[in-house]
Amino acid sequence: MIEQTLKEAKFACRAMQLVDKDTKIEALKKIHDNLLNRMSYILSENDKDIQAARANGMRESMIDRLQLSEARLQEIAQGVLDVAALPDPIGEVVREIHRPNGLLIKQVRIPIGTVAVIYESRPNVTVDIAAICIKTNNVCVLKGGKEAIHSNIALAEVMNEAIKDVLPAHVINMVQVTDRQAVNDILNGIGLVDVVIPRGGKGLIQHVVQNAKVPVIETGAGLCHVYVDKEADLDMAVRIAVNAKLQRPSVCNAMETLLVHKDVAEEFLTKLKPEIERVQVYGDQTALHYLPGQTATDENYSTEYDDYKLNVKVVNDVDEAIEHIYDHSTKHSETIVTENKATAQYFMDALDSACVYHNASTRFTDGSQFGFGAEVGISTQKLHARGPIGLPEMTSTKYLIYGSGQIRE
Amino acid sequence: MIEQTLKEAKFACRAMQLVDKDTKIEALKKIHDNLLNRMSYILSENDKDIQAARANGMRESMIDRLQLSEARLQEIAQGVLDVAALPDPIGEVVREIHRPNGLLIKQVRIPIGTVAVIYESRPNVTVDIAAICIKTNNVCVLKGGKEAIHSNIALAEVMNEAIKDVLPAHVINMVQVTDRQAVNDILNGIGLVDVVIPRGGKGLIQHVVQNAKVPVIETGAGLCHVYVDKEADLDMAVRIAVNAKLQRPSVCNAMETLLVHKDVAEEFLTKLKPEIERVQVYGDQTALHYLPGQTATDENYSTEYDDYKLNVKVVNDVDEAIEHIYDHSTKHSETIVTENKATAQYFMDALDSACVYHNASTRFTDGSQFGFGAEVGISTQKLHARGPIGLPEMTSTKYLIYGSGQIRE
Repeated sequence: MIEQTLKEAKFACRAMQLVDKDTKIEALKKIHDNLLNRMSYILSENDKDIQAARANGMRESMIDRLQLSEARLQEIAQGVLDVAALPDPIGEVVREIHRPNGLLIKQVRIPIGTVAVIYESRPNVTVDIAAICIKTNNVCVLKGGKEAIHSNIALAEVMNEAIKDVLPAHVINMVQVTDRQAVNDILNGIGLVDVVIPRGGKGLIQHVVQNAKVPVIETGAGLCHVYVDKEADLDMAVRIAVNAKLQRPSVCNAMETLLVHKDVAEEFLTKLKPEIERVQVYGDQTALHYLPGQTATDENYSTEYDDYKLNVKVVNDVDEAIEHIYDHSTKHSETIVTENKATAQYFMDALDSACVYHNASTRFTDGSQFGFGAEVGISTQKLHARGPIGLPEMTSTKYLIYGSGQIRE
Repeated sequence: MIEQTLKEAKFACRAMQLVDKDTKIEALKKIHDNLLNRMSYILSENDKDIQAARANGMRESMIDRLQLSEARLQEIAQGVLDVAALPDPIGEVVREIHRPNGLLIKQVRIPIGTVAVIYESRPNVTVDIAAICIKTNNVCVLKGGKEAIHSNIALAEVMNEAIKDVLPAHVINMVQVTDRQAVNDILNGIGLVDVVIPRGGKGLIQHVVQNAKVPVIETGAGLCHVYVDKEADLDMAVRIAVNAKLQRPSVCNAMETLLVHKDVAEEFLTKLKPEIERVQVYGDQTALHYLPGQTATDENYSTEYDDYKLNVKVVNDVDEAIEHIYDHSTKHSETIVTENKATAQYFMDALDSACVYHNASTRFTDGSQFGFGAEVGISTQKLHARGPIGLPEMTSTKYLIYGSGQIRE
């Protein structure tokens, strides 16, 4: 049971809400400094995780995600300073209403409260989330993966040591147990947890969505589409498709399905072929005329590969592309490539995905690429936050109403 | 199983998203006209519900909520025209970002999608919600109480008849079965229901929060506080306290607990006494010196009475008032009465309730009193919507990103 941790976190929200801008910046600078000062301790704790991972036969690509180094820690510490320098959203007046009865109503940004984040192996998430939460006066409850437990406990300890004289107690809370029960306590924390954000694979996200009784921000599922229209600049379309698939296939904003207008299928796919030789293609009959590969099933069209695999489908028109996207997309990011602005706008208006592009790669769906400076994840749900989650999305609001004795008639 | 209804609703979102401003206004006017044209039919169906309610021994105050009349239907129809006349939030550009690489990023308001509302006896909710959803390009799934089933089916039928040549099919969906299974289908409708909003008593709201796997906007729980500071204008404090408790005790923005600074307890409570003779007081020892009543327990302080009952507690200072509110409030509405602006601002900054007032009655927490023109309910959760839910809160956003061939390096 981690109920005590959740209660301490919720209680800390009261004091944390009143911490001012400069104190938050001071706290973040102290975290930066202490991460550098305590580098050897953090690296030695990280090494315990790495050794355990090797002993358990973890894949090298996963060990790479887990491993810290001096250079990585410097980067992580710099990230904390970057968050400190961002515009502070707390206290911002979102709306001001003057009522005929003299009431002045101000809607202002406030912290959400207790933000619980459940994540997997990367220990940098521990520091990123803590920094973003401090900047937005939130209190965080961090539940990392068991593979990174020594690293995460060390990072939280070093951060808490840094802020102990500056911020209220229990602002950064690391869950030190690694069992599923701790996750379930968070998901059932009505009244204690204001939001839970899962960061990780599909299994984790589904578990949270299916079981949380507290509000969730769903992130990260990315089955993204590129549609090459009959009026596309085909060289541009090749560049965009290759970038969307191959610049970093493992991430959520990479393309999984390429839709091609039938009028340009031959020319476009012939141009594309030499650029995607490393990619396993799942295509419809027409696509497989021009590209080697296997016949695509509906399961292919519904799979987020995050890998060197790609679905290719030839469509009759933009409407068929839109229908296909509605039927298979996770509503993350979609692109149309066309020189026809009206067709582009129609595609952009008709879809309801978080990010819809005209003539650009889906790979830009990212907090830093949007200029947000920091990112908690990419929301693919409709409520509260959509697309990259930056600092404003980590806030709630309240109304302050200034009167002079008004009563309701 | 109402899965078919939910699928039809979800599919209707695609076409509904593209309906323009004028068409929505036309649809709402047709609903207004048809509600008046079909008045006798609606009233005869309503009469079936009234007769069933009488046969089942329903209280007269509940029957009053259920009953329609010509005058009430005219008012309901006028409400539809009022919604039609409100500013249209859909398509509004919330934010525009120009990136150094030439990308133009526009965040625009879009509909949420499928909005499911589960409510109790008042049939006017059927029309209010349908009108608000049409104005915001949302598709609604309405699940009313079984007491109002004939009225609700008739109202939905009359509205659907009105819009059949103007809007896509299945934009207004009335769930015609009255069993709990229909509610559970909605709560489990992952991928089909974008948000569920419960409107009704505590039991309904708790059931939805505990069981929904789809996103919820929690509404309506209102345990509101008035704090009378030592520097209050005591005559103003009496007016505000009386208004907050007695102007309409049955609603969520009425006061349940009165907190009084010890320095003014005697004078204030003596002034208040003759004004609240109809009210059952639960007080602490000091309060009961000046007011007749019973000793308050922690359970009293945690109860939303919605009735002629009031907790009264004498506190040592504003901090004790703030602590009491944090420990017992549903985060709906709280008021401080004081002439000291610094004390007022401290109280307003320290609390995180949806609405915090200075020198005004809590009864103003209401969409129409805020100037929103229409209201779906009062959100007491931190995510997405806080306080009165107006049209902008019934929207989501998406990013439209305009490029000229940009790819990520």
